[in-house]
Amino acid sequence: MPELFNVVTPEEARRIFFGHLSPNATLERVAVADALDRITRRDVHSPSDLPAFSRSTMDGYAVRAADTYGATEGIPAYLDVIGEVLMGRQAEVTVSAGQAAIEHTGGMLPAGADAVVMVENTQQVDAATIEVVRPVAPGENVIQVGEDLRRGDLLVPAGRWLRPQDLGGLMGAGVTEIDVAPRPLVAVISTGDEIVPPEEEIGPGQVRDINTHTLSAQIRQAGGVPWSLGIIPDNRKALTEAAERALQGADVVIVTAGSSVSVRDLTAGVIAGLGEPGILVHGVATRPGKPTILAVAAGKPVIGLPGNPVSAMVIFDLLVAPALYLLAGSSNPPARPTVEAFLARNVASTTGREDYVQVRVEERDGQRWAVPVFGESNLIMTMIKADGTVQVPLDKHGLPEGERVTVTLF
Amino acid sequence: MPELFNVVTPEEARRIFFGHLSPNATLERVAVADALDRITRRDVHSPSDLPAFSRSTMDGYAVRAADTYGATEGIPAYLDVIGEVLMGRQAEVTVSAGQAAIEHTGGMLPAGADAVVMVENTQQVDAATIEVVRPVAPGENVIQVGEDLRRGDLLVPAGRWLRPQDLGGLMGAGVTEIDVAPRPLVAVISTGDEIVPPEEEIGPGQVRDINTHTLSAQIRQAGGVPWSLGIIPDNRKALTEAAERALQGADVVIVTAGSSVSVRDLTAGVIAGLGEPGILVHGVATRPGKPTILAVAAGKPVIGLPGNPVSAMVIFDLLVAPALYLLAGSSNPPARPTVEAFLARNVASTTGREDYVQVRVEERDGQRWAVPVFGESNLIMTMIKADGTVQVPLDKHGLPEGERVTVTLF
Repeated sequence: MPELFNVVTPEEARRIFFGHLSPNATLERVAVADALDRITRRDVHSPSDLPAFSRSTMDGYAVRAADTYGATEGIPAYLDVIGEVLMGRQAEVTVSAGQAAIEHTGGMLPAGADAVVMVENTQQVDAATIEVVRPVAPGENVIQVGEDLRRGDLLVPAGRWLRPQDLGGLMGAGVTEIDVAPRPLVAVISTGDEIVPPEEEIGPGQVRDINTHTLSAQIRQAGGVPWSLGIIPDNRKALTEAAERALQGADVVIVTAGSSVSVRDLTAGVIAGLGEPGILVHGVATRPGKPTILAVAAGKPVIGLPGNPVSAMVIFDLLVAPALYLLAGSSNPPARPTVEAFLARNVASTTGREDYVQVRVEERDGQRWAVPVFGESNLIMTMIKADGTVQVPLDKHGLPEGERVTVTLF
Repeated sequence: MPELFNVVTPEEARRIFFGHLSPNATLERVAVADALDRITRRDVHSPSDLPAFSRSTMDGYAVRAADTYGATEGIPAYLDVIGEVLMGRQAEVTVSAGQAAIEHTGGMLPAGADAVVMVENTQQVDAATIEVVRPVAPGENVIQVGEDLRRGDLLVPAGRWLRPQDLGGLMGAGVTEIDVAPRPLVAVISTGDEIVPPEEEIGPGQVRDINTHTLSAQIRQAGGVPWSLGIIPDNRKALTEAAERALQGADVVIVTAGSSVSVRDLTAGVIAGLGEPGILVHGVATRPGKPTILAVAAGKPVIGLPGNPVSAMVIFDLLVAPALYLLAGSSNPPARPTVEAFLARNVASTTGREDYVQVRVEERDGQRWAVPVFGESNLIMTMIKADGTVQVPLDKHGLPEGERVTVTLF
């Protein structure tokens, strides 16, 4: 009656599972204004020079630099002010030798001028004359055409998870639409004769569904779209029908099964029947999360997650989120924040197993401590009370109190 | 003509500005299923015990613990199997002395039983009899009623930025709707006679709007809703009208002004005219971002951001995002991930000024380096090429090459 696992390390699980997956080939065209947190699939090159004209970076006067050489407070250079460059317009004046034009920050450099003198380094002599008291070099206080970005330059690389500045740069170069990876549609099947939807009254022996909701939120965080198929009873026919429907409609299928061996066996059987190559990994050397199933059918990842809420969340982070990033072709998925802390008590583990310990982060006596949260993997409050996770590596049989650890926050 | 700043440190700016702000008093009721990344404003207590019945954590047999005392492989305890507890149902059997009931993980503990023997520690003798080869203590392999969460226990505290597990715990306790802070509506006014929307062709002297788009994305990341009022010409009447409309409709107003002194003066004048207490801070000791305006009018924050895209983004992170968290009553806004690195070159700064240096993060010879990205604050590519920011503290006149620094990633 005990399950037969052929447990592999998390690293090995990733190698085997991800080796069968490849980025989705289709693309979705979206407005750049809506593309925050979407993922590029191709390099985007700039269609234009940015800026498209030489601009002043200062308030002052557009001049010929040579006219200012040797200028000092004692022996200033005198220049005739021949006009003003208006913002957002073609500069209509031409600056000849001995001349200057009033220039605002961001204004176009007029023909003939090759530099801008800051207003602070000038004195107004009369309505049409200024003194320049410090020289400028050619190009000084000027952004040249294409200095930010030249036409054809790489603007945003393929695989980028788009950030605010990426959208700004695309917009600045005149790119208002972009091809991105479609958000993977992730089916979530929750099984268990004892599970009822949270909005229903529970009867004796029943519990409300937690995993559909934690996993749906994790799917959103990882850039996917959750599709709940509801709660399926623990029988082969119902589960097979749901899994086949999910596989047909979704890009990824997650089955979160009850925690009894018979239900897990049922889940494994149904997943194995979905198609080739079928189950690649059954059992991962982690705690929690050992009874994980990683499979591929119809070219799509199918994951059997443990029924315990903590286990399901830990394995999602460890193996499912990276699979979603891989499908979307993302090379820079958002990292989780981490903090360094001292472990507040001994944590036991076993060599050959990677443990994920939920911890609260506390400041005491000016030092940061990671305090393990008591609780089993079937208690959701373990996760709610925790600020993050400490990993006990595969080759350690535990971590001693006082050890410096990295807490991955969630 | 030079602006008169009364520059304050970022810390002082926060103290003054945030001292005039308080959390928005209104609440919004949302479905828990849609509440990811929303912020609670009140403590939520559990309306029910979780679990609502004592549950088995193992596959095995429900027993009276006393019947197993002293059991060993050599001298097992013999028990009569009187039935099976079905999942999701009231346990219909009652376990008396010398009896056991088949139990699945997650099943209800039947009346009379006080522990569960793992199946691995039993042997089937015949259809109605088992041997137990190891004793169990009362409560062993059982989750008691309310062990995860007791009715009335604090489930999720006020001010929490809701995570997947928080949603799961709420759902598990039967809480399907929740009061959260409304997302602050943030008006963005972009000014500049030279600025045109990205979808339009640009003429001589014109540039496409970047700040509306970077800021709108940053507002979304910080939990707000952006409301763009479009690009307003550099004249007092148009800007005043736009600012008054924004102040009436939005919770927060951002004006991102051009970079010339005259335009900044115009912006400051318009903001000062919006109402009491008006401008609280004009000038912050940061680079980039010095010509920042922090004001309050009609009880709402009004921020004048520099027109340069890098400056506007840096000041948004430093002063605007925290203001949005404050308005929403958030005590645990999401931290940005950080990495430690060695600085790849000297960075100059000035004592009394906090510098934010954009860096690429590179691995070289097995070490992580923070490589400053060349570029002025008016070049958006500076931000696009960067992976994050290094802060040069107020009291330092720079950082030397090789210094260990913390890079805040974006």
